[in-house]
Amino acid sequence: MTDDARIADVLSQVTTATITTILLKKGLRNVWLRGTRPLRPGQPRRVGRAFTLRFVPAREDLATPESWSSPKSTRAAIEAMPEGCIAVVDAMGVTDAGIFGDILCARMQKKGVAALVTDGVVRDLAGVLAAGLPVWCQGAAAPPSVAGLTFVNWQEPIACGGVAVYPDDLIVVDDDGAVLVPAALAEEVATLGPEQERFESWIMGEVQAGAALPGLYPPNAENKARYEAARRG
Amino acid sequence: MTDDARIADVLSQVTTATITTILLKKGLRNVWLRGTRPLRPGQPRRVGRAFTLRFVPAREDLATPESWSSPKSTRAAIEAMPEGCIAVVDAMGVTDAGIFGDILCARMQKKGVAALVTDGVVRDLAGVLAAGLPVWCQGAAAPPSVAGLTFVNWQEPIACGGVAVYPDDLIVVDDDGAVLVPAALAEEVATLGPEQERFESWIMGEVQAGAALPGLYPPNAENKARYEAARRG
Amino acid sequence: MTDDARIADVLSQVTTATITTILLKKGLRNVWLRGTRPLRPGQPRRVGRAFTLRFVPAREDLATPESWSSPKSTRAAIEAMPEGCIAVVDAMGVTDAGIFGDILCARMQKKGVAALVTDGVVRDLAGVLAAGLPVWCQGAAAPPSVAGLTFVNWQEPIACGGVAVYPDDLIVVDDDGAVLVPAALAEEVATLGPEQERFESWIMGEVQAGAALPGLYPPNAENKARYEAARRG
Amino acid sequence: MTDDARIADVLSQVTTATITTILLKKGLRNVWLRGTRPLRPGQPRRVGRAFTLRFVPAREDLATPESWSSPKSTRAAIEAMPEGCIAVVDAMGVTDAGIFGDILCARMQKKGVAALVTDGVVRDLAGVLAAGLPVWCQGAAAPPSVAGLTFVNWQEPIACGGVAVYPDDLIVVDDDGAVLVPAALAEEVATLGPEQERFESWIMGEVQAGAALPGLYPPNAENKARYEAARRG
Amino acid sequence: MTDDARIADVLSQVTTATITTILLKKGLRNVWLRGTRPLRPGQPRRVGRAFTLRFVPAREDLATPESWSSPKSTRAAIEAMPEGCIAVVDAMGVTDAGIFGDILCARMQKKGVAALVTDGVVRDLAGVLAAGLPVWCQGAAAPPSVAGLTFVNWQEPIACGGVAVYPDDLIVVDDDGAVLVPAALAEEVATLGPEQERFESWIMGEVQAGAALPGLYPPNAENKARYEAARRG
Amino acid sequence: MTDDARIADVLSQVTTATITTILLKKGLRNVWLRGTRPLRPGQPRRVGRAFTLRFVPAREDLATPESWSSPKSTRAAIEAMPEGCIAVVDAMGVTDAGIFGDILCARMQKKGVAALVTDGVVRDLAGVLAAGLPVWCQGAAAPPSVAGLTFVNWQEPIACGGVAVYPDDLIVVDDDGAVLVPAALAEEVATLGPEQERFESWIMGEVQAGAALPGLYPPNAENKARYEAARRG
Repeated sequence: MTDDARIADVLSQVTTATITTILLKKGLRNVWLRGTRPLRPGQPRRVGRAFTLRFVPAREDLATPESWSSPKSTRAAIEAMPEGCIAVVDAMGVTDAGIFGDILCARMQKKGVAALVTDGVVRDLAGVLAAGLPVWCQGAAAPPSVAGLTFVNWQEPIACGGVAVYPDDLIVVDDDGAVLVPAALAEEVATLGPEQERFESWIMGEVQAGAALPGLYPPNAENKARYEAARRG
Repeated sequence: MTDDARIADVLSQVTTATITTILLKKGLRNVWLRGTRPLRPGQPRRVGRAFTLRFVPAREDLATPESWSSPKSTRAAIEAMPEGCIAVVDAMGVTDAGIFGDILCARMQKKGVAALVTDGVVRDLAGVLAAGLPVWCQGAAAPPSVAGLTFVNWQEPIACGGVAVYPDDLIVVDDDGAVLVPAALAEEVATLGPEQERFESWIMGEVQAGAALPGLYPPNAENKARYEAARRG
Repeated sequence: MTDDARIADVLSQVTTATITTILLKKGLRNVWLRGTRPLRPGQPRRVGRAFTLRFVPAREDLATPESWSSPKSTRAAIEAMPEGCIAVVDAMGVTDAGIFGDILCARMQKKGVAALVTDGVVRDLAGVLAAGLPVWCQGAAAPPSVAGLTFVNWQEPIACGGVAVYPDDLIVVDDDGAVLVPAALAEEVATLGPEQERFESWIMGEVQAGAALPGLYPPNAENKARYEAARRG
Repeated sequence: MTDDARIADVLSQVTTATITTILLKKGLRNVWLRGTRPLRPGQPRRVGRAFTLRFVPAREDLATPESWSSPKSTRAAIEAMPEGCIAVVDAMGVTDAGIFGDILCARMQKKGVAALVTDGVVRDLAGVLAAGLPVWCQGAAAPPSVAGLTFVNWQEPIACGGVAVYPDDLIVVDDDGAVLVPAALAEEVATLGPEQERFESWIMGEVQAGAALPGLYPPNAENKARYEAARRG
Repeated sequence: MTDDARIADVLSQVTTATITTILLKKGLRNVWLRGTRPLRPGQPRRVGRAFTLRFVPAREDLATPESWSSPKSTRAAIEAMPEGCIAVVDAMGVTDAGIFGDILCARMQKKGVAALVTDGVVRDLAGVLAAGLPVWCQGAAAPPSVAGLTFVNWQEPIACGGVAVYPDDLIVVDDDGAVLVPAALAEEVATLGPEQERFESWIMGEVQAGAALPGLYPPNAENKARYEAARRG
Repeated sequence: MTDDARIADVLSQVTTATITTILLKKGLRNVWLRGTRPLRPGQPRRVGRAFTLRFVPAREDLATPESWSSPKSTRAAIEAMPEGCIAVVDAMGVTDAGIFGDILCARMQKKGVAALVTDGVVRDLAGVLAAGLPVWCQGAAAPPSVAGLTFVNWQEPIACGGVAVYPDDLIVVDDDGAVLVPAALAEEVATLGPEQERFESWIMGEVQAGAALPGLYPPNAENKARYEAARRG
């Protein structure tokens, strides 16, 4: 199993809520991509390296249906995506032009892209849902991307939902949205995450049994000892 | 079959995504009404002539429960709506006062109004859903319209979701929201739309069969020829 | 039955739409808490006294995981909540840091809190839904509260969704969101509400039977008389 | 002197701050037009009847340079403005297309228009300032109105800065912006305004002499008596 | 000279730009109060302890002219302000109701308040400017505070411009706006600030003499040595 | 004189208002950079080729004072700027972190940069004004860029104020803000601009002489003939 596969495997058991708590303790407060909600409720948690795409605003002389044939097109970007990556698209938060529709999403699904994440929207909602690709975005809009956006390039640093995303940063998506794990911290998060989940699970058991919160969450010395005892089992 | 009925019949098979692409090619980039989402997932695609209503902000001396009896009331506007029209309401994007509740929506449903479209919200969500009228809007709020809006008139040019809507423009609504087709372009969109849908359907088949996007979508000469051959079938 | 129980019992039959109409007639236009949508569709209508919590923005020297152990923590606030109250949380409309996750919501549920209302968001959506506490909010975000917020105190006057909420004001929540009834007006709203619901129900029957709106809603003298006759039945 | 001239004469001595206080006491809280700042510091206070103009969003098939020759053009609207009126323009708060430039403002100045008020912006700032017409707006932008707006009509009810303005309502503008006085309340405001100004002037004298605020502003019985004595002087 | 006087004296020579750089190096990124611009260009730099005031939204039953006589009024808060403090007002960013007008500002000036800082606006701009109190805010609006705000209390933790302000934190205001220095860091900032200003002044001299930036700002070892030499010089 | 020098010379006599009108007639509606106001009133009109810089949001592990020494720093970008260019900075509209302060602006001024244009803000306002570089931006903020932004690269396509700017597009700035002229259209705008200015100047003369607008602006056949006669004059 490669390092990436192992980390992805571990993190697929860790919530984005837990990951953001771990990153905050390391001084990283701005890692959650605003406006990236699951397009369909209950989409599975996914983990992958970021493959970035970047748009700038539409300009009538540049953002045309003809531009779809350019070598710097979204089509070419999709063909460059490796299996298992998560496509992260900087749409500058534009919600009135859909970055991709059913055909492009179907092609990404064919290529084994793990998920599409954007601070913009998709178009042809019914078609995108039918294509089967898990999508995190702000919703749907009918107009094509060129009605509001000009595609620029792929695998550059981007802004997405107010977060800086660099190619090959790790992305984790679940019901709470999408979070970024800087590439350099992936190993550490994969180590701390499962332990944090175990600990919170024990806390939840205590709460369900009627325990009050002060002294429990976060735990005082007594509860720390009780948890350690329970853990050693 | 009247022209309107024929156009409606044809366009009920064309997605709003396809319609916006066709209109963009004719130079119209601003035809999708922002903030008009289906109130209930899976509402059927609808096509109709716009019947416009216009609000301005509330003024305590004008926007009162008493105003509901005025000859320029929303009640009078609803009685003037012809069967099959789509009511399009300029609520200036206000989301904290519901333009209509269950009773007004039930009356519109009785009169055969095809759909209600607004950049504002409705109130009494449970009641509106029970009334059965398909609604595209920004959601729901409890307060009555007079808490934030003063009704002015009907069948005037309006702004709705950042788009100019004139009485009798054509409106098409589906999962992606609501789009405007200027009255003068309805015939042409009804001609081009189904062909575009056929073409995209062929592309999707190619993608599902594993084809890459460059040269396919948009098609190069070879793929154009293949499509023409398939079409003549 | 206490006064509170009686009022809650009556108001659990009155929609927030009706309550806002009654309050508007008394000159109160700003009682609907913006951005407080049901977290899960179909949550039951709830009525309770407001138990308020207040956040200010995060400051790196104050909003830390360590602050969770402070005597002025959200944990202590939750322990102070009486059974049947509705927790109303001023998160200043912040949507990129979740005020509470699964553990805190589970504890509130254990303590018999009737509902959680906030103009912010929760975190760990799956966990919060599993905890069973009915929540009205703007959605979910992964980051912990300290990523964007500093907790200050409880049972102070707060702003929530653009509305002033004082401790012990009455809160009613349903599909349309959350509305405030000033404590001094609770009795009167509980008197007027059911009658208004009965009246609107009669109107709806008329509309379903094909009646036009002018003269009916609001009613002219003739329809008032018909309603009175029907009511005396 | 006509009623209008007399009222204008009186109100030209009353601040918009005082006028809004008087209107609030009559239950009108929403009379200040948001986003209408003086274009040049120190523009004189002006009073006049509202002459309204209305825009909707741009549509490429409607908002064209050719539309400037239409009978429903801004040019025709300007020719219809009576001397002494205040032009109030509903630009829907659009700040990236200037409603008028130097030529149209110069023509309004020639026709004796007292002021231009809009929730949008002007264009060709240097030229507009040179034209001499006092303007209250959100600032300046280079693009012509048709880049973002379609002109519809004049002397209709409009929204301007979140306030409902009807033709012939009274408008007062000064350093604090623009306020609306409903036509029906003009006489009363003209009566109460000067007295309020006198009273506040006396208060200010007391404050300058070192008086504390509680009991003074608003005055208790003792200070009311002192003011009455001073007034009778 | 008290500690406070000494710190104020030192910091009155340090720009808010320099202070924010120092605080960022200590991990504090969110200390600049958004929307607090000088009301009059060229107001002097001021330093003082925060005296906080807090508003919540207006409620028609609470925010009335009568409330101005309440013991919890803005008037009472002003009388409690110590000489040399900086009044910091949480107006929740509301820009359509002025928190204070000429009379209240004149009283604050009389009491020796060093400055007024708010994320809201003032009213009666001409009168406030005449009162002489230096003000940092978002601008001016005619309506009284009760048109949009309810005053709650003073000397509580508040939010102002997206920053958490606690009573007795240090506030510094200049042309760039208002910044907060946590009370616990005041001494350290007063130590580091003047040295940073001296250093940047030396850099500016180098730039004016034609030096390129890389290696100079931030300095490499050579330039560090040159600066040290110049400083001892 | 080079082509660039000649075009710049011609366009320095043409307002940005006129340029946007010419571009709109060619189908380009989105060329005015929103939020780019002159920092100091009365800054001279400037014309130059765009030299672009791009920021993404701050990340605590990337946006540090140490990053100022990186080879991909703003310092290196400034050293790469050619004389006469206009620096156009994509700050994503962020207004709470200043992209540049006095030292960087002084260096740009030394290097002969014609102007700085950004949709963000500068810091150390007094210092920037003293540096003498003409700046178009949204205002000032005290915090350093790393408090909110991470610098990425220069001479890439960027978004600035909602407009797509490519390296070497032409930028013109005046009192109305900043407009983009696509490189391919520069020659044509330089040809049409002066003629349009002459024509509008003649119109203004007519208006000053008392002419009504309809038939004059835009001109009917008679007025076109009169203008042609005057022009040949």
